[in-house]
Parts: sequence; C-alpha cells; structure tokens
Amino acid sequence: MTVLFYLIVQLLHPTELEKIAMLGGGSWATALTKILSENGSRVGWWLRSKDDVQHLRSTRHNPRYLSSVAHDLTRVFPSTDLEEVVKEADWLVLGVPAAFVQGVLEKLDRDALRNKRVISAIKGMIPGKNVLVTDYVAERFRLPHTQIGVVAGPCHAEEVALEKQSYLTIGSPDSVLAEDFCRLLRNRYVKANPAQDLDGIEYFAVMKNIIALTAGIAHGLGYGDNFQAVLVSNAVQEMRRFVHALNPQPRDLSGSAYLGDLLVTAYSQFSRNRTFGSMVGRGYSVKSAQLEMNMIAEGYYAVKSIYELNKKLQVAMPITSAAYHILYEKIAPAVEIELLKEKFR
Amino acid sequence: MTVLFYLIVQLLHPTELEKIAMLGGGSWATALTKILSENGSRVGWWLRSKDDVQHLRSTRHNPRYLSSVAHDLTRVFPSTDLEEVVKEADWLVLGVPAAFVQGVLEKLDRDALRNKRVISAIKGMIPGKNVLVTDYVAERFRLPHTQIGVVAGPCHAEEVALEKQSYLTIGSPDSVLAEDFCRLLRNRYVKANPAQDLDGIEYFAVMKNIIALTAGIAHGLGYGDNFQAVLVSNAVQEMRRFVHALNPQPRDLSGSAYLGDLLVTAYSQFSRNRTFGSMVGRGYSVKSAQLEMNMIAEGYYAVKSIYELNKKLQVAMPITSAAYHILYEKIAPAVEIELLKEKFR
Repeated sequence: MTVLFYLIVQLLHPTELEKIAMLGGGSWATALTKILSENGSRVGWWLRSKDDVQHLRSTRHNPRYLSSVAHDLTRVFPSTDLEEVVKEADWLVLGVPAAFVQGVLEKLDRDALRNKRVISAIKGMIPGKNVLVTDYVAERFRLPHTQIGVVAGPCHAEEVALEKQSYLTIGSPDSVLAEDFCRLLRNRYVKANPAQDLDGIEYFAVMKNIIALTAGIAHGLGYGDNFQAVLVSNAVQEMRRFVHALNPQPRDLSGSAYLGDLLVTAYSQFSRNRTFGSMVGRGYSVKSAQLEMNMIAEGYYAVKSIYELNKKLQVAMPITSAAYHILYEKIAPAVEIELLKEKFR
Repeated sequence: MTVLFYLIVQLLHPTELEKIAMLGGGSWATALTKILSENGSRVGWWLRSKDDVQHLRSTRHNPRYLSSVAHDLTRVFPSTDLEEVVKEADWLVLGVPAAFVQGVLEKLDRDALRNKRVISAIKGMIPGKNVLVTDYVAERFRLPHTQIGVVAGPCHAEEVALEKQSYLTIGSPDSVLAEDFCRLLRNRYVKANPAQDLDGIEYFAVMKNIIALTAGIAHGLGYGDNFQAVLVSNAVQEMRRFVHALNPQPRDLSGSAYLGDLLVTAYSQFSRNRTFGSMVGRGYSVKSAQLEMNMIAEGYYAVKSIYELNKKLQVAMPITSAAYHILYEKIAPAVEIELLKEKFR
C-alpha cells in the first residue's frame, strides 16, 4: 500500500524530485529555496559564506535573511562548493546580486550547464556590459534561450516567509520549460503562471528599481502621494516605450509580471531602492547614502545600464535620465525632479 | 498705468474673472475652491449647512474639511442660496456626494444651466438609476455633452491643501471647454491637461473606489502587499474590459487620469473606501462598519451601480462581483477573496 501510495503521488507530481542548484544567500534566494524544497524538490544551495553554510547546517536557519524560516535539511543542502552544487542539478537558479553574478559564473566551466535549465531570479543587468543576465548566461555557456527562463512577479521575499498569497511568472521562450518550473513553485500560497516574454519581463524587473529609486528621491524632496501616482503612471509609459523599442511584441503591461511587479516595489516602504532614493532626495550624497545603508541598491546600477543602453535607442526616458543625472552627474535632485514635473501629464 | 497693467493681466489671463458656482462643502469641493479662487476666479460656494456658511464667512475656514485653508473672501462667496449661486455663474462645478447630487440638482429649474458649462468632480453614479452624473446632468438640464466635463486625476484633497504637486485631467468631448477649465486650475502646484474621453475617465473614477474597497477587504483578511499588487493589476484589466464594452475607443489606461487615479486611491492609507473594506475584512458587518466610520464610503454604492449595469454587459468582473457578494449578499469575505485568488494571474 505504501509503495502504491508513493507511486500515485509520483504520478500526480512527476516533477517532485527535481534537483535544483540555488545560487545566492539573499532574501529572494532564501524564499525560493523555501518554496522549492517544501514542494519536494532537492535544493543544493550555494552560499558564498562558510559561516552561513555552517549556521544553516547546524540550525536550519539562514542567519542573514528570512531568519524565521526553518529549512528542511533532508531536502536543502547548503554548501560552498559551487561546482559540486551545479553538477548535481537539473535546474540552476540564479539568486546572487547582479553585481556579482558574472564573478560567480566565471568560475564554472563553459560546458557546465550543457544539459541544465537555467532560471534567473536576478533583477539587474551585468554591470559594465549592460546585458541582461539571461543573455549573458546564453552567451557564456552557449545555451539556447529556450533553455533559459526568468522568475518575476510582485513578490516581497518577506511575505513568502510569512506564507502570504503571492503570484510568480516564469518567462521563457520555451513554454514547456516555463510550465515545468511553475509546477515546481505552485503551492498553497504561491500561484505561478508561464509567459513567453523573457526579455520584456526581465527588463521590467530591472527598470522597476529605477522607478522605486526615483519615487524615493521625490519623496525625500517632499513630493506626496499625488505626485507618486503620476510618476508611476508615467513610468509605465516610459518602460513600455523602452521595451517596445528593444523587442516589439504584443504584451499586456497591466499583467502581474509587469505592472504588479512595479507596484510592489514602488509602493513598498521596505524597498531598498526607495529608501536609498529617499536619502538622496533629502540631501545625502550618493556615497554617504550607500555608507549609511551599508548596502547598494540594485537600482543604482540599473540606472546606468539602462541609460547607457538607451544612448543607441534614443527612447524618451525622462525618469531614467533624471535618476542618471542625479546619481552619476551630481545634478541637484530638486532641479531634476522639477524638470520631470514639467514633462509629466 | 494701473489701467494698462490691468488690461495686460486681463490679456494674459483672459479667464481670470470667470464666475464659478461650486456645489458642496466636502474636502474635494474645498480643495477646488482654493485652487480656482487663488487663480483669480470668483467662486460662489453653495454649502448645505447654514452654520458652515456662517463659519466660513466669519473665519475664512471651512470648519469640517481642509480646515487649515484660509479662503479669500473677496473671491469666495459661501452661501446657502443654491439658485442665486448658480444663476450668477458661468461654470457649475459639482462637488456634492453622488448620493445627494440628484436631490440638490432637482431644486434647480430645468433651464437653469442653459448657458452654463458644467464640470463634475463627483466620483460616483446616481444611486438607483445607475447612470453617470454627467449623463444625468445632460438629461435633466437638456444639455449637450459638449457643455459638460469631468475633473479627475490622482489627487488627495489633503495634498492640495498642503500645495503638493498634483495633476488633474479635464475630460470633455469639447476640447475647448476642457482646455478652458484647465486654464482655470493651473498654478504653481497644479498641472491640468485636457482629454476627450469623458465616459472612460468618469467610469474609472467610479470603479477605483470599488478596487480600493476590495483591497481593504483583502488587507483586513491578512493578505499582504504581494496580493495587493496583483489585485490592482487585475483591476486594471477588469476596468479596461468594462469601459471598452461600454464605449470602445483607444485610450492609454496608464495615463494619470486612469492608472494614476486608481493608484492614489488603492494605495492610500487614508482612503475611506479602503478603511471601510478593511473593517469588513476584519469581520465587521457592513452596517457596523458604516456606523463605526460615521460615514458611507462611495465605493459601497459604486459596487451596486457597476454590478447592476454589468448585468446587461456581462463583462468578466471578478473583483466587482466579489465586492458585491460580500457587501450586498452577505457572503463571507474570506470565501469571496479565496475565489478571487484563484481567478487572478
């Protein structure tokens, strides 16, 4: 009977024993590790820090992020051995900050991902190169984009820890891959839906941090909710223009993976990007805001990448331009937001 | 010299001495009175309460709403004499709650507005009739829609009182009327833009309160920011379907008058609709929530109007339907939001 029951469960959940390599020890990687492992997947979890791996192994808790989550060590295997973790997996999930992903992946052999599928959970671009993480992965490991996807959606990791209802979208040109990974995620509090628009979803995920950062700057300057709503409305139009210029295809930008993701970030009181922007708006220099926060907001890099990428495209991007001028050219925030104000409708 | 100066000012601001009848003493009517009068218009301000008129005349402050605003009594003329206020005006601005507008306007002669232009600042429909306020005005006073407009936009009245940067849209099929009223509004902290889509803007203004109310219900039940972002994303799609079914025409729903207006309401901690919904979500009955708040949220009526209107249209409106079932059919909030959860993507 037990064997029969097990076989039925296997039949109903054919993906249950998938092997996943999770790269990164931040809050989003921790949340995804929780979701995937609780659903039955085996998660080899690469973290950079030996101490963190040791702490996880002995206490089941990540000492730094979502520390309330107790991981199931019969399914979650923290390790600092990158090669080993990757080798054993069917799926590679990228959860390190964009600024470090290149450094981490360069340690892997160019053929290391040949038969694996890769999901990027990174909301940023490769600094200096101004390419999407998925494009970098495709090139570096000579993978077709049909072997690659992105996970996005309006999803605070903190709410995943609390098992609050969340929605994720898996974007990939391969709809089978997208649906397969959705199946690994779906549970009582996570809905996951496949989508074909890899690029658009990934660019939106990058750009939303620019908007949250700029919303923070305006807030720091004393602008209120009325202005924030107009900023976000104009941001949707700016992002639409940019994504359309890069990759024109029909997409419903009011979907969760686009508008939803933007909203959860731009309206979050806990967003690092918003907090960082708010300090800059209140008069902190970029350097001192970074020192004060003891971390770097992803939007800070995203601004530079998108701004530089747009030099060729020449799309009207008043918000990104304003943020770039403030953060990289030391133009006074008040001056730039004043100019922005005149451009909004 | 003084005369010459005056003539130049007149030439530069030809609309400066427009006469406006403002109907209603609420916060939005008070904010619009401030904007219009400070810009030079003469505002005859009808309020229902004799005490409030007396208080305004003797202290310059509305005792109930935006009490910090000191009105300029050389331009603002509070009165309880509806007929007189309307008779003297070029423009009629409707700022009474939707529930009372019919009762107020029925006191006026059918020809009372023959040569006047009417702007509705009301975010609701005529209860029982399920028609837009502007449609009611057109029919009741036999006015063409080209004599009518609506003012909308992401605009907390409280932020107008604080002179925070705000954006308004005037929707009217007559672009001259829309631009004329925009000119009366524009100032240091108000941008105003004309638009032709009267119906769409007015329906969005009505429906956004349903969304804020439902967001409140979900919040009261313990749903978090992730769910709220998905709710608002799905709401944009629901509102788009509905408005398109009623009046198909191209509109950019990411504009301030649509998405912006929705955001400022759905994300406001001060929204009466959200607060009301939140109480219902936490288990208050509709009656006790209304008693506790000592006021009725506009969304409560909007739900009924839109739901009934949709009986003919049969558009998929899961959010409006859920709110209707909760508020008017006593279905448990948890059950309805659970159903909604399954429908969202």
